Amino acid sequence: MRTVRMQIAYDGSAYFGWQRQDGFLSVQEAIEDALLDLLGEVVTIYGSGRTDTGVHALRQVAHCQLESGLDDDRLRHALNFRLGGMCVIGRLETCRADFHARFDAVGKRYGYWVETARFRPPLGRTMFHWVRTPLELAPMRDAAARLVGEHDFKAFSNAGSVRPTTVRTIHSVRILARTERVGFIVQGNGFLYNMVRTIAGTLLDVGRGRLKPQQVDLALKSTVREDAGVTAPAEGLYLLRVLYDEPVFAGRDRGAGGVPGAFQY
Amino acid sequence: MRTVRMQIAYDGSAYFGWQRQDGFLSVQEAIEDALLDLLGEVVTIYGSGRTDTGVHALRQVAHCQLESGLDDDRLRHALNFRLGGMCVIGRLETCRADFHARFDAVGKRYGYWVETARFRPPLGRTMFHWVRTPLELAPMRDAAARLVGEHDFKAFSNAGSVRPTTVRTIHSVRILARTERVGFIVQGNGFLYNMVRTIAGTLLDVGRGRLKPQQVDLALKSTVREDAGVTAPAEGLYLLRVLYDEPVFAGRDRGAGGVPGAFQY
Repeated sequence: MRTVRMQIAYDGSAYFGWQRQDGFLSVQEAIEDALLDLLGEVVTIYGSGRTDTGVHALRQVAHCQLESGLDDDRLRHALNFRLGGMCVIGRLETCRADFHARFDAVGKRYGYWVETARFRPPLGRTMFHWVRTPLELAPMRDAAARLVGEHDFKAFSNAGSVRPTTVRTIHSVRILARTERVGFIVQGNGFLYNMVRTIAGTLLDVGRGRLKPQQVDLALKSTVREDAGVTAPAEGLYLLRVLYDEPVFAGRDRGAGGVPGAFQY
Repeated sequence: MRTVRMQIAYDGSAYFGWQRQDGFLSVQEAIEDALLDLLGEVVTIYGSGRTDTGVHALRQVAHCQLESGLDDDRLRHALNFRLGGMCVIGRLETCRADFHARFDAVGKRYGYWVETARFRPPLGRTMFHWVRTPLELAPMRDAAARLVGEHDFKAFSNAGSVRPTTVRTIHSVRILARTERVGFIVQGNGFLYNMVRTIAGTLLDVGRGRLKPQQVDLALKSTVREDAGVTAPAEGLYLLRVLYDEPVFAGRDRGAGGVPGAFQY
């Protein structure tokens, strides 16, 4: 028996989220089925965390226990062949026996991508959130700065799984802007259910002038959900990286794919 | 009766090309049907040129004759509502009676987008061409420079419609590169059938070391199709702009959408 960890990119619009559930194809089930088909082993895959339906991942991390001694690279290729392209294992390696994708994770980085064209762009409709209103960046950056640090983020979470604590630390919230395109990059030591989407929704509400940046302080203090902004839709959200204290996946990072990219022209 | 011109963005994977054909939904048919539905007028739309199945457009231009005096902005909104999102009219204006989207066009700008990740990225699979091999940029730029100018591009066209001449002028071929992503921006006074895709395929063959840059001179001289490179697939191709001698679509250009864009993270 050995422990194998893998880095996974997937199109969230092709699956009903990460976690296995009866009757709806999840990413977890797709990989477990590919392993069963390939190795004849009934395997449980443990991800670093769940993603909801529609949420994309560029570098999700998961691990599992395998009997098979199949070479890592051949295993990855064979799995990718079976997965059919909407989910791609970019890296796969045998690791220390007690590595755990979820419990060993010390942080995560998410991206949220918004298009602000006057009309909803016809291309990539499942890959971004479209907002008709132009966004004011200065108040958004003000609001973003107020989120950084250790806070009780209860107001920024929707009722989901019950967690022992709703205190989390946000390391950074960066706001990127280009013509008709705004992105948020949020990194923290952990996230509550729908927390990134609620941060994104709050920043968008601030950018549209519906909320003042000071509203963030108020929501962090009151911990009342209604004091924060709306929950932005799933399709703009990308799990970019899972952070560990140890180096994982040595060598050059090719094949994770990316948020499809634009050229200036 | 008045003449109306429009700027149109569409997801090429959602239509069987630009031109109306029985039994397959084309962009032309979608817009003509929307006009019939909205105004009760049987209208023919004239595009600046055709695009094949899978080819995207960010700023296709078309015109038509209309009886209706409906305000331009309301007409555009009503058409977009009926078009359902995979085809968006970004601009629409009443213009001089004898404007012709095709005959008045003096040039076009196309983009071709290639992903070079080791594995085919799961997101946006209909929006780029994926090449597994890393590409050498220097010989590609050398080859690109050889295409610029007035040449007989017969070798860079597949047998399609018969044209009186196969001589065209390429104004520029720019090669853009980023991590795991290469783009070509080609501008010229006109293009033969499959010409941009064959230029892209030839540049890719040069980038992969299958062809020397000098092969471009040879193909331009011989005008033999086999002397040029392969025809790259439709999904990487974008009609970016149609060029006219007169200013068309005054005001700020919002809503054309874009090649979906990436942020550095």
